[in-house]
Amino acid sequence: MSKIRLAMVGGGQGAFIGAVHRTAAWIDGQAEFVAGSFSSNLEKCQQTGQDLFLNPDRVYATYSEMMEAESSYPEDQRIDAVSIVTPNHLHAAPALEAMAHGFHVIVDKPMAFSVDEAIEMEKAAREHNVLLAVTHTYSGYPMIKEMKHRVENGDLGTIRKIYVEYPQGWLSTGLDLEGQKQASWRTDPSKSGAGGAVGDIGTHAAHLAEYVASSSITHVAAELGIHIEGRRLDDDAAALLRFGNGATGVLMATQVAAGEENTLKLRIYGEKGGFEWSHADPNSLLYKPLDAPLQILRTGNGYLCEAAANASRIPPGHPEGYLEAFANLYLEFFQAIRDHKAGTSMKYDFPDGVDGVHGLQLIDAMIRSSQSEQKWTKVERYTP
Amino acid sequence: MSKIRLAMVGGGQGAFIGAVHRTAAWIDGQAEFVAGSFSSNLEKCQQTGQDLFLNPDRVYATYSEMMEAESSYPEDQRIDAVSIVTPNHLHAAPALEAMAHGFHVIVDKPMAFSVDEAIEMEKAAREHNVLLAVTHTYSGYPMIKEMKHRVENGDLGTIRKIYVEYPQGWLSTGLDLEGQKQASWRTDPSKSGAGGAVGDIGTHAAHLAEYVASSSITHVAAELGIHIEGRRLDDDAAALLRFGNGATGVLMATQVAAGEENTLKLRIYGEKGGFEWSHADPNSLLYKPLDAPLQILRTGNGYLCEAAANASRIPPGHPEGYLEAFANLYLEFFQAIRDHKAGTSMKYDFPDGVDGVHGLQLIDAMIRSSQSEQKWTKVERYTP
Amino acid sequence: MSKIRLAMVGGGQGAFIGAVHRTAAWIDGQAEFVAGSFSSNLEKCQQTGQDLFLNPDRVYATYSEMMEAESSYPEDQRIDAVSIVTPNHLHAAPALEAMAHGFHVIVDKPMAFSVDEAIEMEKAAREHNVLLAVTHTYSGYPMIKEMKHRVENGDLGTIRKIYVEYPQGWLSTGLDLEGQKQASWRTDPSKSGAGGAVGDIGTHAAHLAEYVASSSITHVAAELGIHIEGRRLDDDAAALLRFGNGATGVLMATQVAAGEENTLKLRIYGEKGGFEWSHADPNSLLYKPLDAPLQILRTGNGYLCEAAANASRIPPGHPEGYLEAFANLYLEFFQAIRDHKAGTSMKYDFPDGVDGVHGLQLIDAMIRSSQSEQKWTKVERYTP
Amino acid sequence: MSKIRLAMVGGGQGAFIGAVHRTAAWIDGQAEFVAGSFSSNLEKCQQTGQDLFLNPDRVYATYSEMMEAESSYPEDQRIDAVSIVTPNHLHAAPALEAMAHGFHVIVDKPMAFSVDEAIEMEKAAREHNVLLAVTHTYSGYPMIKEMKHRVENGDLGTIRKIYVEYPQGWLSTGLDLEGQKQASWRTDPSKSGAGGAVGDIGTHAAHLAEYVASSSITHVAAELGIHIEGRRLDDDAAALLRFGNGATGVLMATQVAAGEENTLKLRIYGEKGGFEWSHADPNSLLYKPLDAPLQILRTGNGYLCEAAANASRIPPGHPEGYLEAFANLYLEFFQAIRDHKAGTSMKYDFPDGVDGVHGLQLIDAMIRSSQSEQKWTKVERYTP
Repeated sequence: MSKIRLAMVGGGQGAFIGAVHRTAAWIDGQAEFVAGSFSSNLEKCQQTGQDLFLNPDRVYATYSEMMEAESSYPEDQRIDAVSIVTPNHLHAAPALEAMAHGFHVIVDKPMAFSVDEAIEMEKAAREHNVLLAVTHTYSGYPMIKEMKHRVENGDLGTIRKIYVEYPQGWLSTGLDLEGQKQASWRTDPSKSGAGGAVGDIGTHAAHLAEYVASSSITHVAAELGIHIEGRRLDDDAAALLRFGNGATGVLMATQVAAGEENTLKLRIYGEKGGFEWSHADPNSLLYKPLDAPLQILRTGNGYLCEAAANASRIPPGHPEGYLEAFANLYLEFFQAIRDHKAGTSMKYDFPDGVDGVHGLQLIDAMIRSSQSEQKWTKVERYTP
Repeated sequence: MSKIRLAMVGGGQGAFIGAVHRTAAWIDGQAEFVAGSFSSNLEKCQQTGQDLFLNPDRVYATYSEMMEAESSYPEDQRIDAVSIVTPNHLHAAPALEAMAHGFHVIVDKPMAFSVDEAIEMEKAAREHNVLLAVTHTYSGYPMIKEMKHRVENGDLGTIRKIYVEYPQGWLSTGLDLEGQKQASWRTDPSKSGAGGAVGDIGTHAAHLAEYVASSSITHVAAELGIHIEGRRLDDDAAALLRFGNGATGVLMATQVAAGEENTLKLRIYGEKGGFEWSHADPNSLLYKPLDAPLQILRTGNGYLCEAAANASRIPPGHPEGYLEAFANLYLEFFQAIRDHKAGTSMKYDFPDGVDGVHGLQLIDAMIRSSQSEQKWTKVERYTP
Repeated sequence: MSKIRLAMVGGGQGAFIGAVHRTAAWIDGQAEFVAGSFSSNLEKCQQTGQDLFLNPDRVYATYSEMMEAESSYPEDQRIDAVSIVTPNHLHAAPALEAMAHGFHVIVDKPMAFSVDEAIEMEKAAREHNVLLAVTHTYSGYPMIKEMKHRVENGDLGTIRKIYVEYPQGWLSTGLDLEGQKQASWRTDPSKSGAGGAVGDIGTHAAHLAEYVASSSITHVAAELGIHIEGRRLDDDAAALLRFGNGATGVLMATQVAAGEENTLKLRIYGEKGGFEWSHADPNSLLYKPLDAPLQILRTGNGYLCEAAANASRIPPGHPEGYLEAFANLYLEFFQAIRDHKAGTSMKYDFPDGVDGVHGLQLIDAMIRSSQSEQKWTKVERYTP
Repeated sequence: MSKIRLAMVGGGQGAFIGAVHRTAAWIDGQAEFVAGSFSSNLEKCQQTGQDLFLNPDRVYATYSEMMEAESSYPEDQRIDAVSIVTPNHLHAAPALEAMAHGFHVIVDKPMAFSVDEAIEMEKAAREHNVLLAVTHTYSGYPMIKEMKHRVENGDLGTIRKIYVEYPQGWLSTGLDLEGQKQASWRTDPSKSGAGGAVGDIGTHAAHLAEYVASSSITHVAAELGIHIEGRRLDDDAAALLRFGNGATGVLMATQVAAGEENTLKLRIYGEKGGFEWSHADPNSLLYKPLDAPLQILRTGNGYLCEAAANASRIPPGHPEGYLEAFANLYLEFFQAIRDHKAGTSMKYDFPDGVDGVHGLQLIDAMIRSSQSEQKWTKVERYTP
């Protein structure tokens, strides 16, 4: 056995999420990056390759060149998979090309620029028999897995209410209009797609709620807003929700909650109690049974389910964070790759192509709802 | 000068809010209860009078009898004001009678059974030149006053987002159907009025948001729910909000968030930062300036505004709570009574009849919105 | 039955703790102040009487005059008890005089200026068959009573470790040298006694630990400090502790922890788990069972013991604070007075004269230890 | 440039800290493990090598064999440094051998079995001109670096009080006597050294306090305890502290605080304010200025010092934890290795051999103090 061999598309200097993907891949010693096409700026691309101690021969000016060249390496040297960490409008093309060459793909969220692109990607993965993963990071946290497990187990009884919120404040000023890189592409409809905040963080929030509840949002009553003169995409969204399991709820996702950092929070209530998880304290899960004291379940303890136990690396009281949660998605992806090689298969715990399509459908429904005078808008539901 | 003399309508044994009103009136040594009509059950009424060390002559079988009898006492002995702590359907009648006899009135929320009743009360107060106060408790907290002061002062710049939530869990089971007193009348349309949770706690949440923002909710997109088979009024509400000042937001009020106690929470964000206050830690106010560290403003410190300073009784680090907040409404009411006697007048910081009418209008709008297929429903706005 | 009639010694304008005692006595409608000798400054004394709506005849220039005069009232009008809220050096004299006249006494802590004075007071209470209570406030909190109950019940097994800390920051600067009233007397050996911080807050911390553990500190290894040039009494103390039950621990009490308010905190650990209570969140008790999730026990819930339930006035989620805790001591004192009148008697849950003597003995031991080169100093233990 | 090449001594299956060191080395893509002697059990050793995808030729039965064999590799293939993660009694021998062969060493804490061993190691590092690092993890946290920076900068003025505590509960039962691996060696004087809890976690606490205060503990008044029948080393320690800078304080370190996980906490107070950091929320630093609101400084924000900024990998609101803090020590160690190769040198921010010796001296002083009847025991201070 050897380490998984990865290539990266995007993630050159000045990028944010590329470095996160790399750390997530490295942290458990299971994989190495051996190739990359990091930037359309060749110098930047080569510099990144050097920073990563790559063989210069495997640092490519374009992803197309990379797919071609890597295919020609012997099987025990060529890349296994490609991490795609470019802005949204550059997800589908490299992903489709990678899959066509038989490489597995792990792509940042939202999976694509549009619903149509997303569907094309999902179909391609099946056609070429490769794995397609989408990094909805937050489902990688151990206590989220515990929460999902206990909801599935019926600890709350019938689910009644689901509240998910994702307040950020970093777009409170016109950063995007001043050319700040992360802000600019995220508010540019030609790069981000039709959704701004609703795509960037709303999809995270929605995915987390649906993942934990094991149920999809079927209808939304949404309002999106823009709070900076000249900004072109929504920086703020809120919606009343209806879920397939009969629960109702509220989603809030905003990037103009000045002073907020990144405090995604999920609360689920059923007949018998509630759960609450906040990204501000990700190693704790609040369990609120009806008529008994609140309990704080904590990462690393013996009383957790197998999925939560496996998603944690260190003993109780040793905080784990965002990078470890991200790495858990990669670990599952790596296991799937190894099993794929071995010809075996199972259900893997990472968001896949169908989840990715659904994310785009949710963005679409939120936008349509916001423009509608009708209270409720149906969320389309893709099934392969 | 002497203590303010109060009478109470309602608040016999087994009641909850009556005892709260009494403590709120006693706590500062400014008033005493000298009369009461505590229960339609005469024995219970008399027992309560005895528990309060009242003169049995001033414990009355009916509130009508009380208004009559008290009017005949000399001015320096008769009651100054009446506290009304009965279920909602029994607010208007004693209040109108008290006002007609020239007694000031302080009444629990929502102010009345219906919008019409509320308007009648508001008009009566002006007609008889008496004070009418409604106990939206939470506006009595010192840090809420600080928050309001700073918002008015422009510390946040233009307000963009207002999120208010009020989760409770005590109606997660069918308590009301089993005859639990507090649950039963609150879910009985003949006693509570048209709203359940939306009236019981939704009005608190809405009032708090409007009080701090100094702006009214103009439109709601609401959904109300009932989660127990056989329950007759909503136990759960959520709404998207539009405010007169251009802000948008979300209101959540539920009594089926199993495991939750009473954690009213308000967050307001503007161009320059945000504030957050939670009833779980009422002596703290989180101030989140844009691009600077979060600050925790705390009761009793020298840096607070006058209104916040006056609303606190003890030094920093000595927790004050619900009873003290409630008492702050009473203290303002007492000051208004003393000024009224003296013929002076100013703006007092307690919710008044107009606020009370608005509370009922908000309940009405939430219910209409929930029944409507249109996204937005206008909230009527009473002005005297 | 009628309200308990109280007099106050001290508590004129500018005082802090006098107002707290008054609120604590009023809050439950069980007592009224009918007399007082509030200040050695006659004008101030009379103004305070007027602010309290007292009959001017019962506002006295000296406490001696008050004891005399009140004794001459008929039994159903004269005072039942005296609240003593003067600086420490003026506790014993009025208390002894009150007791000699048959009045019950409730006195702020530390009970006296010295161990000898305290013993004299304790003996006088027994001699004259009156009640003597000392207001170690923190033992009045509901969750402290729950903690004590569960420790007694064996929930933790054998107690091993007791950590108590009381950080304040208000003496970080030379307030006392600038004449600030509260600071000046507390650091004046002729008014405060031999201890500064150790007496003012160290005794609170020690009493709380001993109350909850039902065990006394037997030995201390202490260091006291003075951090402001010119200050005459300690503003800072720390000690290793040994308890009668075999537990060991640490006490910290400081008034120079700049930026701290008043966050008394107690942690107790035994074989089977631990408890933690902090004054910053007094309605919560953290229960940390071995190998199971932490629980947060909360005021007002049905699962609490009778003592905790009785010490709370409102439902779960409605915060209670310092004044309510203080009032719980007064409520017990009132019940003891009523029973004393009725000739019955039981064990009351307030700190009494013996506890008061022990507080002074603890101060004495801390000071002796700090001056000693020996590690351990024995705490004397008074038994009547 | 290429990745740093590492070998590991210890860290076979069933070990805890070995995996932590590996992750810390991998997480930033700066190093790879190319060799190891993981266990005295050959099969286990080889299995670990295989799990790490090592070349079987470089998996060694003994560390002596490894040092020999690795020395014979060409310079661009041989190991640069050795990570030593064995129990304490097996730190010095492999470290000395590695240094004698010119390899840099990074070793878990405490650095050695005894003061003498530690001094020998420190001397060897200088003699052989190699780097020697000790993994006092907690000094790697970004907000600890911010705290240190601000203390050095004088934000608190003169430091008065330093409180550090490290409560754990995992030795509340006789795990060690039942053969649990981690517990057994830590309580075995032949493997752990003279200190139990005082060595395992007391040294972490002491180092953290000294690191942030930039001042050493000069005297202790300590008590150590053993709470399980048959246990051979202390499981609990507390001490009054005196620092070289004139500050006084308290250290608590216990492994029998049943229910506690790993909540190291440091508080420092000076004339002008205080800082508080807790491992329970490591991305926050509480700053408590005198007479102004408490501030919460948070990882990743623009207002932090360079050292804190560099120690963080992701934006505000994305939690980082223990592994990232550990990795920060490795990153500094790697930079020092690269500079060493390049012949340059600077001050590196990791605990070094002198710090390591001091840790052993502190253990020694705590034990001597606990056995002494004198209050204060001097901490010896090694200087090279």
